[in-house]
Amino acid sequence: MHFASDNAGPVPAQVIEALSRANTGHVPSYGADAVTQGVADRLRDLFEAPDAAVYLVPTGTAANVLSLACLCPPWATVFCAPVAHIHEDECNAPEFYTGGAKLTLVGDDDRMTPETLRTAIRGEGTRGVHGPARGPVSITQLTERGNVYSLDELRALTAVAHEFGLPVHLDGARFSNACVKLGATPAEMSWKAGVDVCVFGGTKNGLMGVEAVLVFDPDKARDFEHRRKRGAHLFSKHRYLAAQMEAYLEGDLWRDLATRANSRCDQLVQGLKGAGVELVNDTWANIAFFRAPLAAHKALQAQGAVYALWGGTEGLADTDMVTGRLVCDWSLAPEDVSAFLEALRGAL
Amino acid sequence: MHFASDNAGPVPAQVIEALSRANTGHVPSYGADAVTQGVADRLRDLFEAPDAAVYLVPTGTAANVLSLACLCPPWATVFCAPVAHIHEDECNAPEFYTGGAKLTLVGDDDRMTPETLRTAIRGEGTRGVHGPARGPVSITQLTERGNVYSLDELRALTAVAHEFGLPVHLDGARFSNACVKLGATPAEMSWKAGVDVCVFGGTKNGLMGVEAVLVFDPDKARDFEHRRKRGAHLFSKHRYLAAQMEAYLEGDLWRDLATRANSRCDQLVQGLKGAGVELVNDTWANIAFFRAPLAAHKALQAQGAVYALWGGTEGLADTDMVTGRLVCDWSLAPEDVSAFLEALRGAL
Amino acid sequence: MHFASDNAGPVPAQVIEALSRANTGHVPSYGADAVTQGVADRLRDLFEAPDAAVYLVPTGTAANVLSLACLCPPWATVFCAPVAHIHEDECNAPEFYTGGAKLTLVGDDDRMTPETLRTAIRGEGTRGVHGPARGPVSITQLTERGNVYSLDELRALTAVAHEFGLPVHLDGARFSNACVKLGATPAEMSWKAGVDVCVFGGTKNGLMGVEAVLVFDPDKARDFEHRRKRGAHLFSKHRYLAAQMEAYLEGDLWRDLATRANSRCDQLVQGLKGAGVELVNDTWANIAFFRAPLAAHKALQAQGAVYALWGGTEGLADTDMVTGRLVCDWSLAPEDVSAFLEALRGAL
Amino acid sequence: MHFASDNAGPVPAQVIEALSRANTGHVPSYGADAVTQGVADRLRDLFEAPDAAVYLVPTGTAANVLSLACLCPPWATVFCAPVAHIHEDECNAPEFYTGGAKLTLVGDDDRMTPETLRTAIRGEGTRGVHGPARGPVSITQLTERGNVYSLDELRALTAVAHEFGLPVHLDGARFSNACVKLGATPAEMSWKAGVDVCVFGGTKNGLMGVEAVLVFDPDKARDFEHRRKRGAHLFSKHRYLAAQMEAYLEGDLWRDLATRANSRCDQLVQGLKGAGVELVNDTWANIAFFRAPLAAHKALQAQGAVYALWGGTEGLADTDMVTGRLVCDWSLAPEDVSAFLEALRGAL
Repeated sequence: MHFASDNAGPVPAQVIEALSRANTGHVPSYGADAVTQGVADRLRDLFEAPDAAVYLVPTGTAANVLSLACLCPPWATVFCAPVAHIHEDECNAPEFYTGGAKLTLVGDDDRMTPETLRTAIRGEGTRGVHGPARGPVSITQLTERGNVYSLDELRALTAVAHEFGLPVHLDGARFSNACVKLGATPAEMSWKAGVDVCVFGGTKNGLMGVEAVLVFDPDKARDFEHRRKRGAHLFSKHRYLAAQMEAYLEGDLWRDLATRANSRCDQLVQGLKGAGVELVNDTWANIAFFRAPLAAHKALQAQGAVYALWGGTEGLADTDMVTGRLVCDWSLAPEDVSAFLEALRGAL
Repeated sequence: MHFASDNAGPVPAQVIEALSRANTGHVPSYGADAVTQGVADRLRDLFEAPDAAVYLVPTGTAANVLSLACLCPPWATVFCAPVAHIHEDECNAPEFYTGGAKLTLVGDDDRMTPETLRTAIRGEGTRGVHGPARGPVSITQLTERGNVYSLDELRALTAVAHEFGLPVHLDGARFSNACVKLGATPAEMSWKAGVDVCVFGGTKNGLMGVEAVLVFDPDKARDFEHRRKRGAHLFSKHRYLAAQMEAYLEGDLWRDLATRANSRCDQLVQGLKGAGVELVNDTWANIAFFRAPLAAHKALQAQGAVYALWGGTEGLADTDMVTGRLVCDWSLAPEDVSAFLEALRGAL
Repeated sequence: MHFASDNAGPVPAQVIEALSRANTGHVPSYGADAVTQGVADRLRDLFEAPDAAVYLVPTGTAANVLSLACLCPPWATVFCAPVAHIHEDECNAPEFYTGGAKLTLVGDDDRMTPETLRTAIRGEGTRGVHGPARGPVSITQLTERGNVYSLDELRALTAVAHEFGLPVHLDGARFSNACVKLGATPAEMSWKAGVDVCVFGGTKNGLMGVEAVLVFDPDKARDFEHRRKRGAHLFSKHRYLAAQMEAYLEGDLWRDLATRANSRCDQLVQGLKGAGVELVNDTWANIAFFRAPLAAHKALQAQGAVYALWGGTEGLADTDMVTGRLVCDWSLAPEDVSAFLEALRGAL
Repeated sequence: MHFASDNAGPVPAQVIEALSRANTGHVPSYGADAVTQGVADRLRDLFEAPDAAVYLVPTGTAANVLSLACLCPPWATVFCAPVAHIHEDECNAPEFYTGGAKLTLVGDDDRMTPETLRTAIRGEGTRGVHGPARGPVSITQLTERGNVYSLDELRALTAVAHEFGLPVHLDGARFSNACVKLGATPAEMSWKAGVDVCVFGGTKNGLMGVEAVLVFDPDKARDFEHRRKRGAHLFSKHRYLAAQMEAYLEGDLWRDLATRANSRCDQLVQGLKGAGVELVNDTWANIAFFRAPLAAHKALQAQGAVYALWGGTEGLADTDMVTGRLVCDWSLAPEDVSAFLEALRGAL
C-alpha cells in the first residue's frame, strides 16, 4: 500500500535489460554513441517533430531549469502556478540556472486559466528597465495537484503566452500519465498545443533517472548544450541514459506504464467515491487527493498505508478533515489498491 | 584497441546485478533508502572516517564543483594545475557553482609542487578587497597527464595549503587507479595526507555514473545538500546511484577494476619502452602519453587503434613527433594491449 | 507643481558646499579618507550604535541588495510586501546579488502584518532541501504606498521574524521621512525596534546619490566589503560619497529636509481632504495617493501638474476614478502645493 | 609629493560648477533629463560615432564588467593581460556580472602582442562543449604598467580578435592619458582601431566618479540597460553623473587634464633618467615605474613622498632593488615633481 510517490517504486525489467544490452564494447562518450543518436531520432518520430533538438538529462529539475534558462534572461520572470514544482520543489534551481530570474505566480491554484495568466502577464513588464521583463510561461501537465489540463485548456494558455510573444515550457514530469489520460498523441499535447520546449519525463514513470527535453524550434536550443555541461549534467557514459529511454520508447512502454498507473488511480478514485469520500482534484491521471478525518488517516497508516498528508497536522483533532495525497506508480497491483480501499472503509 | 578514454568501455556485470538487486519494492526517495544509507556507512569504513559526510552524485564535474562551492566564496580563487579538469574540461562549471570564483593556475605542468603552489598562493590575496581572496587548493590525483603524486608529494602540497589556512579538495576521478598504484589505503591518500574534501570517482573506473564525495569535517559540508538540490543533482530514485556504489565497494571491486586497468597500462608502458618509444609521463597508473612520428600514429589508427592525439596535427609533416594519449579502462584484455603493441612495432 | 518623485528635485546648497570643502588635496582612496571615517563615526553616534558596521553606497538598490546578500543564502527566500521596491523596481537585483534567492510576497498590501508575515514564514522552509529555506524579512519604511508603520507595528513584525530566528532588513530609502513623521530617533526606528540591517537613505531626501547601510551586529557584515567591491560599488574617490553624507548629518539636515517634504505633504493632504477627495493611504509622510476622475487628472496635468497615475488608464472613461501619486521632495515650496490644490479645485 | 594614484587628488573647479549648474528645478530621473541626453550626443560627436549607444556609470569596474557581460556568455572566456585591472583589481566582478565566465591570461606582461593573443585564442575553444568558448578580447589602454599601445599595436590586436570573430573591449580608465600621449582622436583610438565597446574613463582623470561606455554597434548593447539596472548602477538622479561628464567634455577639459598629468609624468621621467634611474615601462603617459634601492625608497617616503612599492619588501635588504610606482594626476604642480626629484637625488 505504497502511495507516497511515483519515485518510490522499482523500474520495469525492460529497463535493466536495455542497460545490459547497451553494456557491450567501447563506444564514443558524451552522447556521440549510437544508442543516444537512435533514441533522439525515435523521440523526434514520436513527437512528429523532425527538426526538434533533443537532449537527455538525469533529473526532472535539470530538465526544467536547463529549458527555462534557454528561454528566460536573468532580468525576466517565469509565469507559473503557485504550486509548480519549479517554484516549490527545486530549491531555487530555476533562479540559479537562469542567473537570477524571478517566478511570477499565476492564480492561486494548480491550474492557470487564460484569465489569470493574462492578468499576471499584464502585471509584469510594465516598468521598463525597473521591473522584470516578461519571460516564458511554464505549464505543468499533469499538475502538482493531480489535475489534467484538456487539450483545449492547454491551447488556450499557450495562445495567451504567444499573444504576448512569450515562449511556453511544459514541465512534463508526468507527461505520459496526462497524455494517456487525454488519449492524445505526444505531438497533440506539446507543439500542436503551442508548447515550445517540452520535458518528456521518464523518472516518475518507470525509469531510474532520465528525462528528455524536446526543443521544437532548434534555434531556441542553441545554448542548451553549454548550459547542460556547465550545470554538470552531461553524462560521459551517455549510453546508460539513452538505454533507459530506448526501453521506454520500445513498444510504447512509456504508454503501458502510464496506463497501468492511471488504471490504479481510477480504481482508487472509484473506491473513494463509492465510500463517499471527497476527492479534491476534479480530474486525475495517477494522483488523487482525498479528504478524510485525521483519525481515518491515522488508522490507514497504522495498517501500513504509506502516503503524504497535506498541510501539516499539528494541533489538529482526530475529527478534523485532512487531505491525503495518493500517487500511483506503474508497479502497483490492483490488489494493492483493493487492500487500501478495504482499509479505508474500515478506517472511516 | 580502444584507448580513447576510461569513459568509453562497459561496466562490469556486478553493477548491473546490483541494480537488479536494488530494484524491488517501494523505498523512500532522495537518499533515505537503505541501500544509500548502507553505502554511506561502508564508505566511511573504507576511508576510516566515521564522522565524514558522504554524498553521491552522478558526474565527476558535479562532485568537483559542489565540493568547491562549499569551500570557496564567490570572491576567492581556487588554486589548481593549468591542465586541471576543473579548468579545462568543465565548461566554467566551477565558476558557475561558486557564484563567480576564479581559478589560479599553479605552475605550468600537471603536477603542482610546494614551491609553485606557495608562489601562487603568495601572489593572491595581497590586494585586500580588490583582488580575489585565497580559496581552496584543488589537487588532481592521478593527474590529467597520467602522473601520480606520491604520498609524500601529496602531504607536502596539503601542508602548504594548510600553512595558509586553506582547505584542500582532491579531484579523485581516478582515485582508485592512483590508490592502487601507490599501494595506499583510501585514508592514506585522502585525510591522512591532508585532504579535506575527497572525490572518490566511480564513473571512470567501471560505474555508469556515480561519484562519492567525502567531506571529512562535516562542518564544511553544511551547505552541500542545498547546493546539490539547487544544482539539480539530487536523484529522486537514489537507490540506483547507491546500488552502483554498493557493487563497487563489495569485495573491493573498485580495487580490482583499477588493478586491471593499471596492469594493462603497465603492459603498454613496458611495450612502449621496449620499442624505444618515448613516454611523456614519468609515472603512470592507467594512462600513458607517448611520442611518435605522425606517420606512426596514422598507421596505428588505420589499423583500428582508437586514441587521442594531443595538441592538434594541422600543418604537421609525417615525420613530426606527436603525442598520443592511451587510456586503459578495466575492460581491456591483455590481448588488446598486445595487438596495439604489435601494430606499433609495425608502424614505427 | 512637480510631484512625480523625490528623485526629481535638486539637492540643497549644503551638499554642493560639502563637496567643495572635501575637494582639496590628495587623500587615501576607497574609503580610508578622513571624511569617510568621520561620517561613519557620526552615523554610529546618530544611531546610538557604537559597534555598528557602516557602509556608503551610491544607490538605494545597491544598499538593499548588498544587505540582503549578506543575510540570505542563495537557496533561501526573502519575505517582503508584494509592492516592495526590491520586488517591483530593482530588475531582479536581489536575485542577482544573492545568487538566486527568491522573494516570498507577504499579504496583498504594502504593509505586512504579524499575521500575514507569520503565515508566509510558516508556508516556507517546510520542505527540507526541496523548497527554499527561510531567509530575512525585509520591511519598507515608509512603504511604497506612502504608509508609515508605527513603532509598535515595526516591533511586532520584527518579533515575528526573530521568533523564527530570521534577521530583519529595513529598506529605508525614505527612512528620514518616516522617522520625522513618527517623531522617533533613528535608533528607535531601527535596532531598538528589532532591525538588524538598516538602510539610511539619502538620495530621495536631498543627496545626489548616497545611502548608508548600518549593520548593527558587525558579524553579519563580514562579507559586505567583498560583495560591494565585486558588485562594482566601491567608489575610489570615496570622499565624494562621504561629503554628501557629512552635509546630511551636519546640524541634522536630514531631519530638516524630511520635515520640509512631510510638511508639504501634510498641506497637500489637508487640501485634498478639504476638497472632499479620497486619500488612499491612511497614514503618510511625504507621499499621498488620491483618487479622482480621470478627467480631473487630465485637467491637472494640462495645467502643469506632474505626477504619476497608478495602474494605467487605457480604455478608461473620463468619469472613471483613477489613483494619482503625489510625492513631495524637500525642495517644494508651500506655493507649489497651493497652486496644485487650486488647480485641483478647478479640475473637480 | 603624492604619486600614489590618480584617484587620490581633487576634481577641477569646473566639475563642482557643473554640478551647481545642473542643480536647479525638477527634472526627469533615470537619465531622461536634458543634461544626460546632451552629454550622450556630445560623446557621440567626440567619438564620431553617431549611432553609438552611450551609457554613464559611476565606477570603472562597473563600466568594464557591464561591457564584458554584454559581450561574453557565461561559458566563454575573456582574453586579457595577466595584470589587467579586470583580473587583478575587480574582486571577481567580471566573473559575477558575466554569470561565471573565465579570464584567459595572455602573455606574461602588461602588453599583449598579436602573437601571444593568437596563441591564447587558439588554446581555447578547442574542446567543444567541455572547455570554455572563446569570448571577447579586453585591451587596457594605457596599461596597468603605464605603457601605451601605439595605434598600430592596437589595430594589430583587434585584427587578431576579429580574425576569430571575437569582439574587443577597451578598458579606458586612462583613455584620455593614452589618447593625449598618442596625439590621437578618440575615434582613432577606439572604433577606427577596431574597438567594439570602449570605456571612456573620467574618474581617474578628474571626475568624482563617472565613466562613459560607448557601444559602437548598438545591437551589441541590447542588454546593457537591464544589466546596469540589475547591477544597481542606474542612478535615479542621473543628472549628477551627466553634469560631471558635461564639464569633462566642455572645451575638451578631459584633454587638458590628461595633458597636465602627462606633462608631470614627462617631467618625472626626464628627472629619473637624468639621475640615472632605471625606468621600467618603456613608454608612458601619466605613470612611471622606476627601480631604486630599498634604502632610497625609504628615504623618499621619510621625506613625504607618497607612492606604492611593487611586489612587497618583506625580507629585503636596504641595497635590494625595488620598483616604485609613480602616478601623476592632473592636480600635481611642476613644483611637486621638482620636489620629488630633488628628494630622489638626495636619497640615491
